[in-house]
Amino acid sequence: MSILHTQDVNRGGHMPDIAALETGIKKGDRAMLGRAITLVESRRSDHLAQAQELLSRLLPFTGKARRVGITGVPGVGKSTFIDAFGSNLTKLGKRVAVLAVDPSSGRSGGSILGDKTRMERLAVDEQAFIRPSPSAGVLGGVGRATRETMLLCEAAGYDVILVETVGAGQSEYMVADMVDVFLVLMLPGAGDELQGIKKGILEIADILAVNKADQDAGKARRAARDYASALHIMTAGDAAWKLPVLTVSGLQNQGLDALWETMEKHRHVMVEAGLFDQRRQDQRVKWMWAMVEDRLLTRFRNHEKVCRILPGLESDVRNDCKTATQAAEDLLSAFGMGDLE
Amino acid sequence: MSILHTQDVNRGGHMPDIAALETGIKKGDRAMLGRAITLVESRRSDHLAQAQELLSRLLPFTGKARRVGITGVPGVGKSTFIDAFGSNLTKLGKRVAVLAVDPSSGRSGGSILGDKTRMERLAVDEQAFIRPSPSAGVLGGVGRATRETMLLCEAAGYDVILVETVGAGQSEYMVADMVDVFLVLMLPGAGDELQGIKKGILEIADILAVNKADQDAGKARRAARDYASALHIMTAGDAAWKLPVLTVSGLQNQGLDALWETMEKHRHVMVEAGLFDQRRQDQRVKWMWAMVEDRLLTRFRNHEKVCRILPGLESDVRNDCKTATQAAEDLLSAFGMGDLE
Repeated sequence: MSILHTQDVNRGGHMPDIAALETGIKKGDRAMLGRAITLVESRRSDHLAQAQELLSRLLPFTGKARRVGITGVPGVGKSTFIDAFGSNLTKLGKRVAVLAVDPSSGRSGGSILGDKTRMERLAVDEQAFIRPSPSAGVLGGVGRATRETMLLCEAAGYDVILVETVGAGQSEYMVADMVDVFLVLMLPGAGDELQGIKKGILEIADILAVNKADQDAGKARRAARDYASALHIMTAGDAAWKLPVLTVSGLQNQGLDALWETMEKHRHVMVEAGLFDQRRQDQRVKWMWAMVEDRLLTRFRNHEKVCRILPGLESDVRNDCKTATQAAEDLLSAFGMGDLE
Repeated sequence: MSILHTQDVNRGGHMPDIAALETGIKKGDRAMLGRAITLVESRRSDHLAQAQELLSRLLPFTGKARRVGITGVPGVGKSTFIDAFGSNLTKLGKRVAVLAVDPSSGRSGGSILGDKTRMERLAVDEQAFIRPSPSAGVLGGVGRATRETMLLCEAAGYDVILVETVGAGQSEYMVADMVDVFLVLMLPGAGDELQGIKKGILEIADILAVNKADQDAGKARRAARDYASALHIMTAGDAAWKLPVLTVSGLQNQGLDALWETMEKHRHVMVEAGLFDQRRQDQRVKWMWAMVEDRLLTRFRNHEKVCRILPGLESDVRNDCKTATQAAEDLLSAFGMGDLE
């Protein structure tokens, strides 16, 4: 990428120059941070270039925050939880940023996450910064903007980044791939009332917490014990970190200090095992490849000849009129990468 | 793809013509089936074309078999289990094919699965056909050859296809994506001795069976009960099929009839719920895309300029000297698909 010249900087509209954004962010200027996030979220290729220039300047100032992912089914009380948990942290002197990955926002144009009105205390807390979900970016999808927003927040001095997701589609995996610790909030229940743990979530969860423990403490404790016992049976014994199950109440601010201590303990265990830096390094390389694959497939799917034959081929394969291999070959030939012609 | 002409047919060497293979396979000729599998496993592009021609002719005769995936850790007794389970089925009048997906065979050149000497009864059973792992094919990796071998076996009249895997890397997911029912064999144990269930396996397992129940029946039953109770807590209650846990002994031929009944019941439940055909259709479309992605990425990774800059970029990203987005952009530019230049 070429170095940006002064005359290029403002062709994107009302964007301050990169040096001003860099300086402002390093000072923790919220308005500048907000503008930089808008730049990172933009789909325009000149904005993309500017955003990458800004990020490359800020990279040495990133990476110091606690990166925390949070998921849970609708109704589990994520907003109330984050409002209380984040407020506790700002009282401890930490600066807290709340970001959201909402896989639906790209389609609907709006966002059901990161809504400031759902987090009354954090929304007016000078030490907190709440950013709603970005709409899906072109390069690397919705995940890229959130990951790079996280880097901007780190450069702006935020100590804790809370990344929340509703957990639809692949969004939980996307968030797990950008944080150091992934928290799954569960609802209390007992026996048949237990709502179960979403398949695949055990692969990415680092901590489980049964929320709404204030409603019936005994029920929440039994639920936590049942989950813990199931986890004990289900998971192999040689992992560096054993998935713990806690009970908390976002509404009554119960168990949130213990949860933060557990997160700090997780960090300590991962650092000691040499897995903390490795996880971040692996995440970065994975992001790079995810963006490469995303672009290659987008080009492929948008290729004129591919577009023309794809519906028929997919239908033939679905109806068993053509082998998957032959259909793949036909598509690749149309794209100019065939083997058989 | 063009229709093959007679003079093309033998350019691949000692391969009988496609019509002869087609006729032979439809008659259930084992030698012809063996040759067709060799054709499907070949990496040569002329063989690929011939294999696709053969498969497209045989497609109308495929799809009638029970497709069963089997995995378990080394030492769980897979070979003994398959030998007994398969022999029971041939005694019921079914023709049984045993295939293997071994992710290591591409590298080592050899195979540790599908070895006939491990399955003494099936190896000499006229109603059974055992095929060792293929080495990795070019298009779509090791999975393609196994999937297409399955189709050939179906056209040759095999009623049950058992696809086994050691479960390293992504091989379990690959097998789960080509079968109707996926069986996970477990070792017995109790309490702390339980070996745990590999993360992610719950997403793809349809049946769990604790093997070696002959050694200590009580222990095996307790293990099965513990797993079942953990599964009950861990899984949501709205699925069409509840993952059952059985106890079996491959060595003593115990519980294998009940296991087969459970597989038939699974099929019935899936058909009733309208999920059986949908699963197979989704699998085929997924295979098509997997092959397309595989080829695109292989082309990308082998591209001269990409090869030259990749190690440096990956190292820069790993060491946080460059953003993942910028590195992806650099790679895509080298490939001629950049956005920023």
